[in-house]
Amino acid sequence: PPAAGYPFPPAPYGGSYQPSQGSDDDWDDDWDDSSTVADEPGALGSSYPDYEAAGGGAAGRYRLSTRSELSLGSRGGGHPAGHPHPPGSGGAKSSATVSRNLNRFSTFVKSGGEAFVLGEASGFVKDGDKLCVVLGPRGPEWQENPYPFQCSIEDPTKQTKFKGMKSYIAYKLVPSHTGQQVHRRYKHFDWLYGRLAEKFPVISVPHLPEKQATGRFEEDFISKRRKGLAWWMDHMCSHPVLAQCDAFQHFLTCPSTDEKAWKQGKRKAEKDEMVGANFFLTISVPTGPGAGLDLQEVESQVDGFKAFTKKMDESALQLNHTANEFARKQVTGFKKEYQKVGHSFKCLSQAFELDQQAFSSGLNQAIAFTAEAYDAIGDLFADQPRQDLDPVMDLLALYQGHLANFPDIIHVQKG
Amino acid sequence: PPAAGYPFPPAPYGGSYQPSQGSDDDWDDDWDDSSTVADEPGALGSSYPDYEAAGGGAAGRYRLSTRSELSLGSRGGGHPAGHPHPPGSGGAKSSATVSRNLNRFSTFVKSGGEAFVLGEASGFVKDGDKLCVVLGPRGPEWQENPYPFQCSIEDPTKQTKFKGMKSYIAYKLVPSHTGQQVHRRYKHFDWLYGRLAEKFPVISVPHLPEKQATGRFEEDFISKRRKGLAWWMDHMCSHPVLAQCDAFQHFLTCPSTDEKAWKQGKRKAEKDEMVGANFFLTISVPTGPGAGLDLQEVESQVDGFKAFTKKMDESALQLNHTANEFARKQVTGFKKEYQKVGHSFKCLSQAFELDQQAFSSGLNQAIAFTAEAYDAIGDLFADQPRQDLDPVMDLLALYQGHLANFPDIIHVQKG
Repeated sequence: PPAAGYPFPPAPYGGSYQPSQGSDDDWDDDWDDSSTVADEPGALGSSYPDYEAAGGGAAGRYRLSTRSELSLGSRGGGHPAGHPHPPGSGGAKSSATVSRNLNRFSTFVKSGGEAFVLGEASGFVKDGDKLCVVLGPRGPEWQENPYPFQCSIEDPTKQTKFKGMKSYIAYKLVPSHTGQQVHRRYKHFDWLYGRLAEKFPVISVPHLPEKQATGRFEEDFISKRRKGLAWWMDHMCSHPVLAQCDAFQHFLTCPSTDEKAWKQGKRKAEKDEMVGANFFLTISVPTGPGAGLDLQEVESQVDGFKAFTKKMDESALQLNHTANEFARKQVTGFKKEYQKVGHSFKCLSQAFELDQQAFSSGLNQAIAFTAEAYDAIGDLFADQPRQDLDPVMDLLALYQGHLANFPDIIHVQKG
Repeated sequence: PPAAGYPFPPAPYGGSYQPSQGSDDDWDDDWDDSSTVADEPGALGSSYPDYEAAGGGAAGRYRLSTRSELSLGSRGGGHPAGHPHPPGSGGAKSSATVSRNLNRFSTFVKSGGEAFVLGEASGFVKDGDKLCVVLGPRGPEWQENPYPFQCSIEDPTKQTKFKGMKSYIAYKLVPSHTGQQVHRRYKHFDWLYGRLAEKFPVISVPHLPEKQATGRFEEDFISKRRKGLAWWMDHMCSHPVLAQCDAFQHFLTCPSTDEKAWKQGKRKAEKDEMVGANFFLTISVPTGPGAGLDLQEVESQVDGFKAFTKKMDESALQLNHTANEFARKQVTGFKKEYQKVGHSFKCLSQAFELDQQAFSSGLNQAIAFTAEAYDAIGDLFADQPRQDLDPVMDLLALYQGHLANFPDIIHVQKG
């Protein structure tokens, strides 16, 4: 089963969804039933993108769609429309078995965008699945979430199962619209991320804070991850589409104790038919006079945005590097410099203590105090990054995740 | 003449008065008439200590006292009292021709302390020359100056003479007790220092700010020297004995334009008979019941002070080194670090400018402002030493001068 360690290499940075590594034990116990799902032919690819199968020895267990070879072969002269492909089988996504190096449209194909444009999508869109685009003051935008909410992430707690054989960290989530706390592990976030990244090819799903193989139970790491998850959650809740998505709501509201309900919701999300080409059917755009977009104008805006994200990506990378270095220097060098001066003043005050004159005790104390003040300033410098640069870098990491998403999204949009 | 460059090597740090170097052009024009003085046999040694003659080829022009050989020869078994020695001839000081390495009591001998103790001092002390010690609440102390004053040192100005052939910096001095401004050059301070260091073997005369061979007309140097001279002046004015001394008063009050009066006062100071052994005659100590000091108590206090000054000297040296390094790092490294972060934010703001959205201009400006703020903080760090460490180091330099004086002073006291 996949839980024993995924047989495929991680996607490169800037690529699409990167599944968990075996080294992160958030996945080292089988809480999910994805093996069951993989055994059901009809559900193929809805547990994980089926290109998983391409890299490992387990390939024989998966049914590979013939669609992928067709995609590859027909690139030059357009794609035959109406190719017989069972809806909901995840076939559009299966084209990802084609190497990216051989197919420069892979993202567009993988997302289902091509199949949609070619008229291959044929799902039935329920009202609840509709994603409405409206005309806002600055152009088309997602319809606002009529029930805005937030969700806190607090109290990361070490928990054990199997009589202490397995340890993990659980976070307490309290969504404001239910007020009911639930406990989730990083692997739950990771599962959710996988669902969303797969379902929304034109929406930038924020990346989760990075995985870490060692030191997972160290306080600093747990605190940093909690903050990262909180940033992630803030973005999720503020997004008009992501916040309302079924999988996300299931994640936020399903009681942690009700394992059956959790598995039901999980399987439902994994069996979602409104993915791939069908996803595009769920987008409901404004009609009527003034609702049409000027193609050239759209092209120009997308190109402008592309140039902006490229430059922002570069400068965010640079800022991240500089801020990291600067934080490190404050914690080490700056602190040391101040404390060297503090030490020198301390020596001077010790010299003055030799001169036991009643009238100079005020001065002696002042010198000793100066020494302590320099020492304290050194400590303040060491602590400062926690106050300013660390939050900036945490936020920057979130944005860097988005910036890594945009090339693919822009590609699908353009397609 | 001595003005052409002194033929003797500088005294080691911590030794007694160190005359100007030929490399410092504060001395490169002959304003003084020391050559005339040197030619007057009776005034020998009152222009400069006559051990000058020992190191150079000009020795033949100076009359060497026979006293020095006697001092050397008689070290082991005490000194014959009543040795015929003309008072006021500077003979006591002339013993400095004896190498320090051969005579471990040289400072005591040079100061005239030995001659005084041996009853060889025989000058007539005028009332105006008396230096009164009184019993204060914490023991004997110099009688306070009944006419306290301060003196400002401002407006260092480059001046020229010999039709521009010679340039020098003149400082404007305004002593509060006359309110009359006078202009003095560094060489005038240097001359005064020489007088005082020679005259007061038991008083720590503050060292002048260090000489510098190059860059004498650079603004930074001039400003630093002015501040150093101001610290020096503050100490001088606050000292009950130094502040009232004739040579200092002449220096403070003689009109800069009256060259004749200047030379008169200068020669008078150089002919002062109350130097060497005679100096000790000018000290007037309290008499009567309770005025006597316990020798053991004095010994213990002097030893305690000696230990204190030794430790203070070490820690002042260390602080000076650390503060210097720290100041340098603030000006270079700290500034650079902040400005690197500023630069990264600037790049980010430039990226945001690509995204010409009206609603994000506030954010764009905030990022640009952040960049400027980091830049400005860098500049503040570079400027900070001027505000705190530089003054501390200037003051420290003054104290280091005193600390260098104390070993000799304690030695004379003990003698």
